[in-house]
Amino acid sequence: MPVVQKRTKQPTVPPRDAFRYRQLAGEIENKIFSGLYPPGDRLPSIRSLHRQTNLSISTIYQAYRELENAGLVVARPKSGYYVQPVAMQKLEAPIFRKKSSAPQRVSLAPAINSVVEAISNPRLVPLGNTAMDPALLPVKPLARILKSITHSEMRTLLTYSPSEGNPELRRQIALQTTGVMAGITPDDIIVTNGCMEAVALALLAVTRPGDTVAIEAPTNFSFLQLLQELGLLVAEIATDPQEGVDLDELEKSLDRNSVRACLFMPSFQNPLGALMPEANKQRLVEMLSARDVPVIEDDISSQLYFGEPHPRPLKAYDRDGMVLTCSSFSKTLAPGLRLGWIIPGRRFNAKIRRLKAGITMSTSTLDQCVVSRFLSGGGYERHLRTLRSSLKKQLYRTALEIRRHFPAQTRLAIPQGGSLLWVQLPPGVDGLDVYQAAFDRGIATIPGAVCSNSDRFGNYIQISCAAPFSPRLKSAIETLGAIVDSLFPAPGCSRQAPCRP
Amino acid sequence: MPVVQKRTKQPTVPPRDAFRYRQLAGEIENKIFSGLYPPGDRLPSIRSLHRQTNLSISTIYQAYRELENAGLVVARPKSGYYVQPVAMQKLEAPIFRKKSSAPQRVSLAPAINSVVEAISNPRLVPLGNTAMDPALLPVKPLARILKSITHSEMRTLLTYSPSEGNPELRRQIALQTTGVMAGITPDDIIVTNGCMEAVALALLAVTRPGDTVAIEAPTNFSFLQLLQELGLLVAEIATDPQEGVDLDELEKSLDRNSVRACLFMPSFQNPLGALMPEANKQRLVEMLSARDVPVIEDDISSQLYFGEPHPRPLKAYDRDGMVLTCSSFSKTLAPGLRLGWIIPGRRFNAKIRRLKAGITMSTSTLDQCVVSRFLSGGGYERHLRTLRSSLKKQLYRTALEIRRHFPAQTRLAIPQGGSLLWVQLPPGVDGLDVYQAAFDRGIATIPGAVCSNSDRFGNYIQISCAAPFSPRLKSAIETLGAIVDSLFPAPGCSRQAPCRP
Repeated sequence: MPVVQKRTKQPTVPPRDAFRYRQLAGEIENKIFSGLYPPGDRLPSIRSLHRQTNLSISTIYQAYRELENAGLVVARPKSGYYVQPVAMQKLEAPIFRKKSSAPQRVSLAPAINSVVEAISNPRLVPLGNTAMDPALLPVKPLARILKSITHSEMRTLLTYSPSEGNPELRRQIALQTTGVMAGITPDDIIVTNGCMEAVALALLAVTRPGDTVAIEAPTNFSFLQLLQELGLLVAEIATDPQEGVDLDELEKSLDRNSVRACLFMPSFQNPLGALMPEANKQRLVEMLSARDVPVIEDDISSQLYFGEPHPRPLKAYDRDGMVLTCSSFSKTLAPGLRLGWIIPGRRFNAKIRRLKAGITMSTSTLDQCVVSRFLSGGGYERHLRTLRSSLKKQLYRTALEIRRHFPAQTRLAIPQGGSLLWVQLPPGVDGLDVYQAAFDRGIATIPGAVCSNSDRFGNYIQISCAAPFSPRLKSAIETLGAIVDSLFPAPGCSRQAPCRP
Repeated sequence: MPVVQKRTKQPTVPPRDAFRYRQLAGEIENKIFSGLYPPGDRLPSIRSLHRQTNLSISTIYQAYRELENAGLVVARPKSGYYVQPVAMQKLEAPIFRKKSSAPQRVSLAPAINSVVEAISNPRLVPLGNTAMDPALLPVKPLARILKSITHSEMRTLLTYSPSEGNPELRRQIALQTTGVMAGITPDDIIVTNGCMEAVALALLAVTRPGDTVAIEAPTNFSFLQLLQELGLLVAEIATDPQEGVDLDELEKSLDRNSVRACLFMPSFQNPLGALMPEANKQRLVEMLSARDVPVIEDDISSQLYFGEPHPRPLKAYDRDGMVLTCSSFSKTLAPGLRLGWIIPGRRFNAKIRRLKAGITMSTSTLDQCVVSRFLSGGGYERHLRTLRSSLKKQLYRTALEIRRHFPAQTRLAIPQGGSLLWVQLPPGVDGLDVYQAAFDRGIATIPGAVCSNSDRFGNYIQISCAAPFSPRLKSAIETLGAIVDSLFPAPGCSRQAPCRP
């Protein structure tokens, strides 16, 4: 129903009240997302809110209209406003199949190059771009730091930093681990060019070409690319869309194969969004320590949790120095500043230092200065709170739109953090077909096929929610839904007798 | 002789004339260094200069005194001023021994860690630090570029750059190759985190652990560290202190050993300063192409030539895409901005792109923006001219002081570019002893032993001239000379019957 037409019927809101109704809508929205107003519940009436808040009737009406347009609220005639029943309803999670694979060479899906190009193409709607939109980043404070650099400070900025990183930055990173990992000091931290260099150094430290690395299925396709370039084999381990890598499956693989290392992402896994339960983390670290298999963990998204507490990295359970924790500021501050770090643990610290010195010598002095000043300035925690709340809303909004516009057989779970949705398409619909048709209509997505090494997950797509929800994104999801609908039922199947995925 | 005492006898120069005498001294100095006034020649008399230039007698006298203090000019009573006979005299070059070695594991000199720490210790006199002093770098223009970045540009600076690099920066780098290498387009260039990442990517692209890489003896110790970390073996090829790697020795090594790749620095080699003749470059590339052995070249110093023309990289002779050229702005603009590049050639271009994407994803957007703006601004050529002239003076000044304060049996060649002096100590004097004694007196140098894999070059030290010559450096060289003198003759040798090195 065209919104513009309806708007002509609404009470006019003077511009000075626009801020108030948006603020009220935001407050109600937060209560819905936090579960204070459960799905299906009746919301306070306009009159009761008017009495409570002193806001005008038209302002409150406008706030509810806003929430209605966002799909969070439904108006029932002569009854009032209700939380959209589907809003917080547990969506049906993708089906988990316990299927792991024996070690094999990496062979990337043929679509990979096209996908990588599409997701970084700024002209396409960014439903595949996992890099945070600058609107979510502290652009102004960072720009102010640049302006504050004096000529005499610039002299220092042109010289090399210590290979292991700027001491103040390492101190700030160590401070961030308080309450999450015990006993991390600046000496434990080595600054890298983003999380990818950290992972690459870790792989170079613990493997040689031809070795086997256990990975999650599905996994971040950038890892597959890196593993291929380093000449490594991969053993895919079945990974639960909600709880992460399956430990029984991993144990079987370790028994059967000579696995040299593991590369996992326990918190808000890419692409699943899965969060490994704390008990599983402990069991995983103990299992690997007992077998002397190091584990490289990508901890890049753990600060993007929606609830409490901050998920702990595997490192928090590491007694034998077998966990190499990799992270970065790419998801929280600035992808383009290329600042990451690795906490290799005592067993690999010296080796990683030598590799870092050998491969990139040191990290940009300017980037390190800008970020360490931002962290020292004290605004990081506040920024993270805002970022988490924005991501949570973006994720819910996107999930609601998918629910609304995709065929009912679509499945997805809303993760407890991060910015990714892993969408299982209706039976028989091929993610690559969806990707291609969406691309032709100016929308970038990630087909599930590129996230594994064994032609699996063809029935999935990954949707990234790294940009503020907007009419452009809303309409792109609607288009995607129409595309999926047009591909379902697939040839040879019917809605009555759907093909198995 | 204390200079201060002498100065009291000189005609007083009014402050407003101070600029003029320095300018005149600079002009004469340039003529000496360019060979217009050869060593031993009589310089124009004070009276004739007075007539020619309209400068006052005292100003001209002051200029000659300045040159005398710098060791470039000698006053002969009742005769006039002469170019110091030793000044441009060809110093005796270090002795070249045609000694290569079979492939072997890298085993770094035990002193390496101490040396790496010493040369980056800002409290020590930087005679071992090869990083350019900020006084030689365009600090102000770069600081101005930072200040000019607007809030809205900052949004873009926080996002990822393309993995292969900022298009404008790649265009500027391609423009730099005009007249030096034919046919290089921006597409041929991949931006890296400094030259070291370029070399590391090249090694990862063309070798696997256990392969043999042919290297120069002596070589840049950072290469030895990297080769060790990547699990590569090295075959050392005898390298002439003036002409670079010996091609007959290389040919023999290629015949005998299975060499997978070469890693050479043809222009102003680190640590020798050697410049490979153009004919040798051509022969080298043809020899390797015929055997299908790729060569990785470190071209980082080729822009630092003192004469004309710009030395051509091996790439200029490459017809089969077998040369991988690595370079950076670390020697010319800013070590700390970590910007380098690789021109891998058509055969390895795709592989290097994949490795770059896999290992560090992309390079700092901010660093790339700052440097590409500086290059587009058009001041780079002028800056390079100033830099070359400063380096040339620093190198000559340092060489003269070494000549003056070290025992006569010391040998060194002044290279035709770059910033390094390779000093052969008198017979029996151990570079590590010199390094240690200098370190104890607050001076950092590089002992020759760390520049090879076969316990050779113990009789050498490397002196870096990357900072403007100053009284502090002058006095450090004097101290070094006293240290070398105190160690010579070494125990068991005598000045009359010196031990062989």
